[in-house]
Parts: sequence; structure tokens; C-alpha cells
Amino acid sequence: MQHPSLTLNMIQLDLASPEPMQFQLYRAMREAIVTKQLAAGGRLPSTRELAQRWKVSRNTVMGAFDQLTAEGYLKGKQGAGTFVTFSVPDFYSRVTPAGRAACADVVARREAALRQRRMKYQGCTHEPSPLAPLRPTVPSLENFPFALWEQCRKAVLRQGERSLLTYGDTLGYWPLRRAVATYLRDTRGVRCEPAQVVICCGSQQGIYLTASTLLEHGETVWMEDPGYQGARIVYEGFGAKVKPVPVDREGMDIQRAPVAEGVARLIHVSPSHQFPLGHTMSLERRLRLLDYAAASGAYIVEDDYDSEFRYEGRPLSSLQGLDQSGSVVYVGTFSKILFPSLRLGYLVVPPGLVDLFEQSRSRIDGNPTLIDPATIALFMEEGHFARHIRKMRSLYQERLELLHDAVARYLRGGLELEKQQCGMHTVGWLKGSTPDQEVTARAQKNGVVAPPLSQYTRRFTLPPGLVLGFAGFRADEIDNAVKRLADSIPL
Amino acid sequence: MQHPSLTLNMIQLDLASPEPMQFQLYRAMREAIVTKQLAAGGRLPSTRELAQRWKVSRNTVMGAFDQLTAEGYLKGKQGAGTFVTFSVPDFYSRVTPAGRAACADVVARREAALRQRRMKYQGCTHEPSPLAPLRPTVPSLENFPFALWEQCRKAVLRQGERSLLTYGDTLGYWPLRRAVATYLRDTRGVRCEPAQVVICCGSQQGIYLTASTLLEHGETVWMEDPGYQGARIVYEGFGAKVKPVPVDREGMDIQRAPVAEGVARLIHVSPSHQFPLGHTMSLERRLRLLDYAAASGAYIVEDDYDSEFRYEGRPLSSLQGLDQSGSVVYVGTFSKILFPSLRLGYLVVPPGLVDLFEQSRSRIDGNPTLIDPATIALFMEEGHFARHIRKMRSLYQERLELLHDAVARYLRGGLELEKQQCGMHTVGWLKGSTPDQEVTARAQKNGVVAPPLSQYTRRFTLPPGLVLGFAGFRADEIDNAVKRLADSIPL
Repeated sequence: MQHPSLTLNMIQLDLASPEPMQFQLYRAMREAIVTKQLAAGGRLPSTRELAQRWKVSRNTVMGAFDQLTAEGYLKGKQGAGTFVTFSVPDFYSRVTPAGRAACADVVARREAALRQRRMKYQGCTHEPSPLAPLRPTVPSLENFPFALWEQCRKAVLRQGERSLLTYGDTLGYWPLRRAVATYLRDTRGVRCEPAQVVICCGSQQGIYLTASTLLEHGETVWMEDPGYQGARIVYEGFGAKVKPVPVDREGMDIQRAPVAEGVARLIHVSPSHQFPLGHTMSLERRLRLLDYAAASGAYIVEDDYDSEFRYEGRPLSSLQGLDQSGSVVYVGTFSKILFPSLRLGYLVVPPGLVDLFEQSRSRIDGNPTLIDPATIALFMEEGHFARHIRKMRSLYQERLELLHDAVARYLRGGLELEKQQCGMHTVGWLKGSTPDQEVTARAQKNGVVAPPLSQYTRRFTLPPGLVLGFAGFRADEIDNAVKRLADSIPL
Repeated sequence: MQHPSLTLNMIQLDLASPEPMQFQLYRAMREAIVTKQLAAGGRLPSTRELAQRWKVSRNTVMGAFDQLTAEGYLKGKQGAGTFVTFSVPDFYSRVTPAGRAACADVVARREAALRQRRMKYQGCTHEPSPLAPLRPTVPSLENFPFALWEQCRKAVLRQGERSLLTYGDTLGYWPLRRAVATYLRDTRGVRCEPAQVVICCGSQQGIYLTASTLLEHGETVWMEDPGYQGARIVYEGFGAKVKPVPVDREGMDIQRAPVAEGVARLIHVSPSHQFPLGHTMSLERRLRLLDYAAASGAYIVEDDYDSEFRYEGRPLSSLQGLDQSGSVVYVGTFSKILFPSLRLGYLVVPPGLVDLFEQSRSRIDGNPTLIDPATIALFMEEGHFARHIRKMRSLYQERLELLHDAVARYLRGGLELEKQQCGMHTVGWLKGSTPDQEVTARAQKNGVVAPPLSQYTRRFTLPPGLVLGFAGFRADEIDNAVKRLADSIPL
């Protein structure tokens, strides 16, 4: 058998690249073998010669050779040198320019097709500039008692470090499920056993998990319009037909739902604090909704976001607590009470569906984390959670008043705030004729985040308005943001 | 208007219940109003009288009345007493026994239908008894340098507490994406920029995210058989037709794939360490696979699990590094190198698909966590990660030898271990004729976890065998487990 000597002249190393020399060399030689520039049977120059030629250490060359040998491309023979042993199979079409072109074409068409398919999720926009005022959904982080949090974390780790590092229960850490059940019963009138509580990665995953468990391709979902678009893209992602249902001061009006277009499998509502308008669903509407669900077999997804923050009167009980037919999936989150990067929330699901939710969850991401859930459980048991909510409630109420004051100062006649007294954001109605998206864009240029109300609507139009968060910002930030907002509204 | 006096005789409180009296009372009265046992316009007895009758404090009764008043069921009139104000709407069908029966029927049929639909995921079994030997996938937790981990955590919090509590980038914490890109380039020959790295909740979510982005209902997926069933249930959950492809010592044999049954959209493989058999895919098979993908437009999901633990030779480079057509999605996890409850893993996706993965991720659970990812990034940058892998590699190699010794001692003739020298588990072939599920069941009774090989197969049958984990157990645990396993194998 002949062993032609190979020159390796095609190998070019880039001394300026951050990529280590050994890896560059390994990759370039592999590439040359796979594209038949280095043919099987050929003998390589010695590592010493190559090291001199490429101005690298001999160890670098030997490292690359070792790797290529381990992977079956090269073989060293005692006293005879190193040989290319891998012969590129005949089928390997990418060796030829025609093969490469054909492949590039397939790849391009594939990506175009994928992009086409995924167009339906274009509605999913990411909120900009994380902490800029007046972004909604941002809690007051400088007031989070992080030192207490860390004490709780230390305490749970002291008790059970080993057991908190391993695999947990798919539905969540039991003491947290128990603490959530107690908390929801006491504060939200939710009727549940700890076994019905499912710990998940924030309310977004809660909604996703619900859709994944209850919804089948082609089924119908009714949603509040305006409503939470993060839920809509989930339902549409599962191939559901999402039908908007109008909202007024009493919440979603189920009597105006498109009943003739098919039975709803899911009905998504935010009865405590309609998103984004902030109204509370009336009792009669609640009974109508529950009645429809029980009679039709629909499930209700009750998004109870921000219900902890009500500044006048008592919070209304949950829809879940009024349900007698096991039709409600209740969704809540810790992200806005504790801190957003926790990414922990919970569902309360009907008892007969717990195992189905468990199956879905194990498909989506297996087991949940353990250390943070254990920390929250202790944080709740020791009363820190309830105390923090009480403190934030009065702080946020103050900040809402500051927002009202600032609007009165800078924006009288330009913007009218909703009267609602709850949550972490409110709606400001624009008095002029400028479309809200335009005001939002101008505000953003002035460093103020204020999403347009039209972003949350689908079919039913609203007067132009902005969604304004106040919870996460100090007095001076609120004042300054409203001043800049005033500059963004054309007279 | 008449105001009949109501007796409230139907209200029964359970003094022994753990449910607070006030909530019981609130709930019972609400129930009585909603079911028309207490009619609108009726006047309630005084709170003093009721407190005496029920032997509770007057505050308890007033608390319940306040809540019912806030929710619109009751109204107090100065000097005249408290009245039921909520009149149950005529439509409310659950008031009548017939309405309730009809509703119960709808609910029962709905749950039966759901259960029927979800039958397809029955294959998803949860592994039992988390830490019992010889469960596969359990790393050595007592050797995890948790103190160092906590130091890194403190350091990152000191630097950026505020910014680590808020919302993060959907694709993950940038310094971690950068650290992963460097790590994978240096150790796995992966070719990627940090922007292609997607941080996710463990490899299970990585696979789920991939399916959610690339797969459409009704498309075909090819999977190794035997293979990772946690991936199969994901693909089937998205409505894919999953077709088994046989595996031999060279890995998945793409030439035996069911090409005539339709083009594959996804091909799921574990080339470094076939799951569960442990073989490494040969170079020729790798090129064939890449060639098929480039020519057909299929995507390859490369599950590179356990590739860090190879006890002889050098680990083979990834398939991803050999790909020239952007067809490979690379999946890895931190759960088994650091600790399982972290629930963090990563994908490397083709550059053209990053935005589509971002859309999917934002639907599934919004933003990822920040504190743990920041801690991992520092843990990697400071070299603790690489050092821990090196230590575990030699520890696991020792433990694999201990397993071989114990099998030689107690199971000679009954079980033959695979020769493979990598990973955290190995395969033991049963020499007798007893089906492996039966041996697994007997072992479980003896306190030993040893999943049957048949659990991982779909169409192609294998001789009976067990999957045996050795990484997470001490010498005495391994010895003892093998002894008990020997007792579980009928002679």
C-alpha cells in the first residue's frame, strides 16, 4: 500500500483569533479530511516540522493529533509516522460543490418555511428596558427584605442540604404546596387541599401548563378583550381558536361571547383585577360564567394577578371559591410579591385533574427546583410574606397617589387616570386624538415606558390609553417620568 | 318592601375542622345565598345572637359579614340590621337538583374525555425512590463543593443584587451563555457564539423547547430504539409520529430508518453515549446522519448527556462541531454535574433559529431565573466547574470498578456488565430467562432501583437487561445493592 506524503499546505491558522491554536488546528485538519483534501492513507509531516512551520508549540500539534486519532481520523504507527485513516464515504454529498449548493438550498428553504409557520406568534413582543419607569409589572425591589430571605434560605439548607439538592416532586415541594393552600384559603377564599397546588415557573408557565393539559388543537378559547396577550400566544401556540369577548366595568361579559361559533374549551379571565383595565368582575357575571362552564364543560382559567394589592375595601374572593363543578384552574405568582427572577408561581387545579397536570409538567421540564421553594415556604410560615405584602400594599398605595398628583401637576387635561384602587399599574386615558402607540413611541424616546392600551386589544377598540406602572418606582422617578410623559403627548 | 327574618338554621359550623370559623361561616352563608336558601331581602339575626348560638366570638361573625358585604351578598342598614341583597339570577341552573345533576354529568364526561386524550402519555413513568441505589442519573451529592458554590453565590449577589432580582433576558443570563460557549468549544468541539446558547430548565425543557420550535403536528421524528423515553413523550405530545430506528454498537443506523414512511423533521440521537446502551456513534454514521439532515432538511437533536464522564480515551467531539448545514440542536445539562434541583441546562441552536427559540421560550415560561445562572457563570470562570468534573470523573471511574467487582463477587453467571467506560450508569445483561421487568420488580422489593432495559425499547427487542447507576453511591451502598440484586435474580 502506498502512503503519499501530505503537505498540509491548505491549513491556515489565525494567530489573532481568540480560539485556541490546538482547537483551530484540530478543526482545520478535520475539515480537510472530511472534504477529501487530505485523502485516506496519506502520511502527515512530523509534529516537530509542523510546529516549526506554524510557529506553535509541539504540544499544540500533538494535542490536535491526539484528538483526531481518538476520533478515528488519524492513526500513528510506531516509527512510521502518522497517517490519515478515515476515508470519506461515497455518499457524503457535501464534498462536492454541487452537493454543498444543494444543501444550502435545502437549509434556506427550511428556515424560510419555519419562519412562515411561526409568524403566528409575532404578537409576542418583549417589554423593553427592564427597570425604566413606568413599566408595569415591576415590584419595588429596593424594599424587598433580601436579608430575611437569605436567613430563611440558610435555615432550610441547614436542615436539609442533601435532600434539597436532588430530584424533587414533579408538582413541587410539599411544604410550599401546603403553605400556598393555607395562604389562598385565608386570603383569597380558594377551596383547596395542598395536593391540588401545582408549583410552576411563574404564572406564564402556569397558563402554559394549563393549555398543555386541557387544550387540544383546534379547540376554542374565549379571552377578555382587552386582555393578557401573553396568554393568547400560549393558546394560539397550541392551535386554539382564540375568540375575544368584550369587557366592561363588570368584567368579561359572557352573554356577549360568540356562542354560535362553538363551545369554549377554556375561558381565560382576570376577575379580581381585569387586565389591563383593572375592573372587578361583578357577582352576577361570576355566577353566569361559572354556570356556563358547568353546563358546557368549559374550564375557566382564573388569573388572579395582583389581587394582593387592593387599596380600598377588602379583596373579593376568588372565582375558584365559588365554583361547585371543578371547572376553575386558579393561577397565581410569587414573582411580583417577592422578586421577578425567582420565576415561581402556582396553580390550583380541580382534584380530578392533578395527575394530568403532573404528566404535562414532567414533559415540559421534569422536576421543579427545591431550594427557592423551600425558602419561600419558610418565608411564608414565619410571617415574612404576609408582612411584606402589607408593607408593599401601603407603599404602592402611596405611589399610586403620587402618580395621581404628578398627573394633576403635569398632565391636567391630557390624561385621565382610572379610578381603580388596586394592583401595580393603572390605566391613563389620553384626551387628545393622537393614537396611543404614537404616544408610547414618543415616551420611549424620552426614556419612559408606557405601553399603549391598543396593544392589549384584539377586536374591540378602546379610546386611546396608556398602561402605567407605579409600584416599582420612587417618588422622584414617578414625578420625573410623568413630566417626560407630558412632553411626549402632543397638544 | 317586606323583610322576612331569616333564621340561618341551615348553617352548621364544624368546631373540630382546621378551617378557621370565620371562613367556614363566610362560605356556608355564601353557599346558602347562592342556592337560594337565603333569599334576597331577608333580614339576618344580629351578630351578637349568632355569636352566642354558634359559640364563636362576635368578631368572627362580623368578619364573615364584612366579607359578604364587600362581595355584594349582604348590606348593613344603619339601625335596621343586615340584609341579603344578592338575588340569584334566574339562569343559575345549579340552584335546582336537576341542574346540579346535569352539571355533575357534564363534569364527569369531560374528565373521562380528557383522560382518554391524555392516555398517549401513559408511557411517562416517574422514577421511584429518589436516592435509592442503583438509580441511574443520580450524581454524587456529598462530594459537591457546596461551600464553594455558596461563596460564588455571595460574590455575584454582592456585585449585582438589584439587577439579579429583576426580569432577565429570555434566552438566559449573558455571562453564563458566554461561559457555556467557551466550555463547549474547549471540551466538546462545539462551534458556537454565545448568542446561540439558550439557557433552559434542564435538558428536558431543552428538548421540549426544541420540539415546540421546530416540530408541527403530524410530522415525523426518528428516535433511537432503545432510547430516551422522556424525549419520546415530548414529541408525541406535540402530535409527532415517532418512528423507532435501530441501534447497534456504532449507534443509530440511519440506513435502517423508515425512509419510505416519510421525511423526518427531527432526528433524536445521543451520539457520545447512546442512551441507555452507552455506545459511541461511529464517524461514518455521524457523517451519514449529517448528510441525511442536510439533504432532507431534517434537524438533529444531539443529546450530549454524560459526555463529561469518559474514563478511557478522550471524549469524542460533538456531532454539532461536524455539522456544516446548521442542522444540529445541541442539548446539555448542569443538573448532573452540579446538582439536580438546579434544573438548568442549555441548548446550542443554529444561528438562524435563535429568534424562534426565543419566541417559544417566552411562551413557555417567560424569563429564566438569574441568581443560579450568575452563580454557575462565576463557578465556571473560577475553574471550580472543570475541577469538579475532573474529581467526579475519577470518583465515578472508581465506582464503576466497584460495581464490576461487586457483580463479579455476587452475580457471576447471572449478570454481565457492558464493557463501556463512560457515563453515570451501565447496562447489565441478564443471563437467565426471567424477563427484566420481573427482576426489576423483585429488586425494588429488596430496596434496589434497577430499571429494566425493555422500558427503553419500542419496537426492536433486546435481550433482558438492567440499567445500573453507580455514580451517586458509596462503596458500601454499591456492594450492598448488588448483593440484594443477586437475591432478586431467580437462578
